[in-house]
Amino acid sequence: MDFRSILEARRDGGRNSLDDLRVLADGAAKELIPDYQLSAWLMAAYLNPLDADETAWLTMAMAESGDRVDLTGLPKPWVDKHSTGGVGDKTSIVLIPLLAACGLTVVKMSGRGLGITGGTVDKLSSIPGFRLDLTPDELKDQAQRIGLALTGQTPNLAPADKVLYALRDATATVGSIPLIVSSILSKKLAGGAETVVLDVKCGRGAFMPTLDRARLLAASLSTTGAKCGLKTRIAISDMNQPLGRSVGNALEVREAIRVLQGEQGRFTNLCIELAGLVLEASGLAPDQVSGREVAARTLESGLAALKAREWFAAQGATIDVLAFPDALPRAKFSQSVLFDGPSGWVQTIDAETIGKTVVAIGGGRRTKTDSILLGVGLELDVEVGSPVARGSVLCTVHAESEQEAVWAAQQARGAFTLSETPIQPFDAFIEAV
Amino acid sequence: MDFRSILEARRDGGRNSLDDLRVLADGAAKELIPDYQLSAWLMAAYLNPLDADETAWLTMAMAESGDRVDLTGLPKPWVDKHSTGGVGDKTSIVLIPLLAACGLTVVKMSGRGLGITGGTVDKLSSIPGFRLDLTPDELKDQAQRIGLALTGQTPNLAPADKVLYALRDATATVGSIPLIVSSILSKKLAGGAETVVLDVKCGRGAFMPTLDRARLLAASLSTTGAKCGLKTRIAISDMNQPLGRSVGNALEVREAIRVLQGEQGRFTNLCIELAGLVLEASGLAPDQVSGREVAARTLESGLAALKAREWFAAQGATIDVLAFPDALPRAKFSQSVLFDGPSGWVQTIDAETIGKTVVAIGGGRRTKTDSILLGVGLELDVEVGSPVARGSVLCTVHAESEQEAVWAAQQARGAFTLSETPIQPFDAFIEAV
Repeated sequence: MDFRSILEARRDGGRNSLDDLRVLADGAAKELIPDYQLSAWLMAAYLNPLDADETAWLTMAMAESGDRVDLTGLPKPWVDKHSTGGVGDKTSIVLIPLLAACGLTVVKMSGRGLGITGGTVDKLSSIPGFRLDLTPDELKDQAQRIGLALTGQTPNLAPADKVLYALRDATATVGSIPLIVSSILSKKLAGGAETVVLDVKCGRGAFMPTLDRARLLAASLSTTGAKCGLKTRIAISDMNQPLGRSVGNALEVREAIRVLQGEQGRFTNLCIELAGLVLEASGLAPDQVSGREVAARTLESGLAALKAREWFAAQGATIDVLAFPDALPRAKFSQSVLFDGPSGWVQTIDAETIGKTVVAIGGGRRTKTDSILLGVGLELDVEVGSPVARGSVLCTVHAESEQEAVWAAQQARGAFTLSETPIQPFDAFIEAV
Repeated sequence: MDFRSILEARRDGGRNSLDDLRVLADGAAKELIPDYQLSAWLMAAYLNPLDADETAWLTMAMAESGDRVDLTGLPKPWVDKHSTGGVGDKTSIVLIPLLAACGLTVVKMSGRGLGITGGTVDKLSSIPGFRLDLTPDELKDQAQRIGLALTGQTPNLAPADKVLYALRDATATVGSIPLIVSSILSKKLAGGAETVVLDVKCGRGAFMPTLDRARLLAASLSTTGAKCGLKTRIAISDMNQPLGRSVGNALEVREAIRVLQGEQGRFTNLCIELAGLVLEASGLAPDQVSGREVAARTLESGLAALKAREWFAAQGATIDVLAFPDALPRAKFSQSVLFDGPSGWVQTIDAETIGKTVVAIGGGRRTKTDSILLGVGLELDVEVGSPVARGSVLCTVHAESEQEAVWAAQQARGAFTLSETPIQPFDAFIEAV
């Protein structure tokens, strides 16, 4: 088959069939179709977007383009979790043990971070000894034993997506919602779960800058999931300000541990909302309200923390970081950012500025091959709506040199705007789809 | 500069600047921009077409991407000629000596044929000894001496176009008028001429299937030429039926010689129209009507034929094919196609079917690396409007095997439709722009 006929249909606003999209996905995965033809198709797909059926077909074709994880034999329900990424998003580290403690089987393949979007694999790698290279068999064995497992080792899951994603990045075609949806869901389908909770971030530090775009993405994820036989629950959550009180790999693990051990707040509430959605979707709670109650009780009771300890140990942790959080890496230098005005309320904390500052001092990657510094990052003392007085600490930067700490503190200061009149705090969770 | 910002502007229907398009053309020529980014830009340009300024900028940027021919020192006016290609189009072989005989300096870089579009270089290569590898110096020397020169040797003229054209072919983006215009005119600009006559073919055997599309292309060629400082004269001519009486390399040279020696007809008229346009544009005739008269007289007088003999000899011809046309290659087998109905008039002769049949028996290339058989082809005994009776010869096929001759004759028969009522013949020349 001449790939040009597939290109022509896309170009002219016609339809690509399931067979066409299988040719595309297989051709991408097996490198049978040259990059220059794939990228022309991607641009045509950006400008003439795939319809709902085509999006589902592409998702399935990409899921079928490589290996698939078979969870047969594990206790049901099987759950997976995905976030579209943001600044300070350590949700998985709380949610996975929380859901497992509630009786779900959670098997997750996770990626490394790029740009201001942190990766769960990077965060967990700050736990001494923690293994992120579980084989499919080890993954399944561990999930069988303790109900949860996570690996960063996903060599041949939806390989078509790897090829297409790299081309999208190079060809300014990342922002197409059908392409985003098929990229996310093809990996989840190949990962074997039945139910997926998707956290769509929205705001300055996220992929979807506006609530309208986030809603479009959420709707398409939901429709496409249904067409592909995947049960989805989708939350839209705020990413205008960073999520939680810390940004940076080891710092975020510390915060996740504190939440598992009972710390309350905006980030904790989001974890409970997400857990509530999954518990309802999996049939373990009759509705979302009860789901939230179950989740909150499981956190309070310490069962989620126990499950996390079991999880970390099973994956090779050599120190119990729940008992000894100071065993986690810590940067050498700190610099606090003090409020220099008379008094007021925090109006905005720009997530993008914070994220870029942390990347700049080594806490994230600019390119895929960058190495990262696990201990660096930033801790917030305030959130939007917090009252401040002259001399209040806004945040503290942690860096590996004094010079970087001072520079990063200056940068971070620019992320804050203050108001002379009270500002209402707002939840991270916006709405469920 | 990140090429993605250029891609984003094109994608979003914004504008690419002259600098952007220089980055694109230089990057393509020097292989600094990967194919997959260029092809994404081409698809975006297909769907969000370049405006008139952008088209001119791209044309200039591509013309500047490699070497440029400098005709300084040659007698003015300097003329070049281009056809968008069709079946049986041997116009250059008549027009070049005709214009030179009228006192113009004609320097032309010509290409090889691909698909049903024949190439002047292939046609002329059927003249024994004819050299098509003149160097720039040889080209200029010869034009100085006798007023005309043609070469197939154009290694580094608008190299950006070579790269982009190959990608357009692979990515279903050939049909964009601004991309066609910049491809044609960049080579003409780099070729050094001041005036270019462009023959835009329109119909079943041409790139532009309809008169509307041909007019759009002609208008854009004219506007872009003016913006780039290139004087253009554009004819739109018919390519529903093949041009003239022969299709195939040596057969077309024979026909061109007959026209130079006085044969009248539809093809001769087109040559006179095109010559009239150039003579007017170059200031050698006060208007197109006088231009046509000068051209017709120069053909009749035998001066154009003398110039052709001088030309062929200067480029190395070892036999005077004007005196001895049987020295041209001839295929071994012939098969005539006879009309099998009672009587009627020729209604259509499908140029595409005729062109494909000739390619199939070796008269043209399917891919760039195919070799071709110079003697094969087809001679028409009729044109649209010709009356026919049972047993009339419609055409004669020339092939290198009897089997191919019989097969091609069957194919060629399918190109003709007949009418029981009279059909009006029509000119090849449609209109000038």
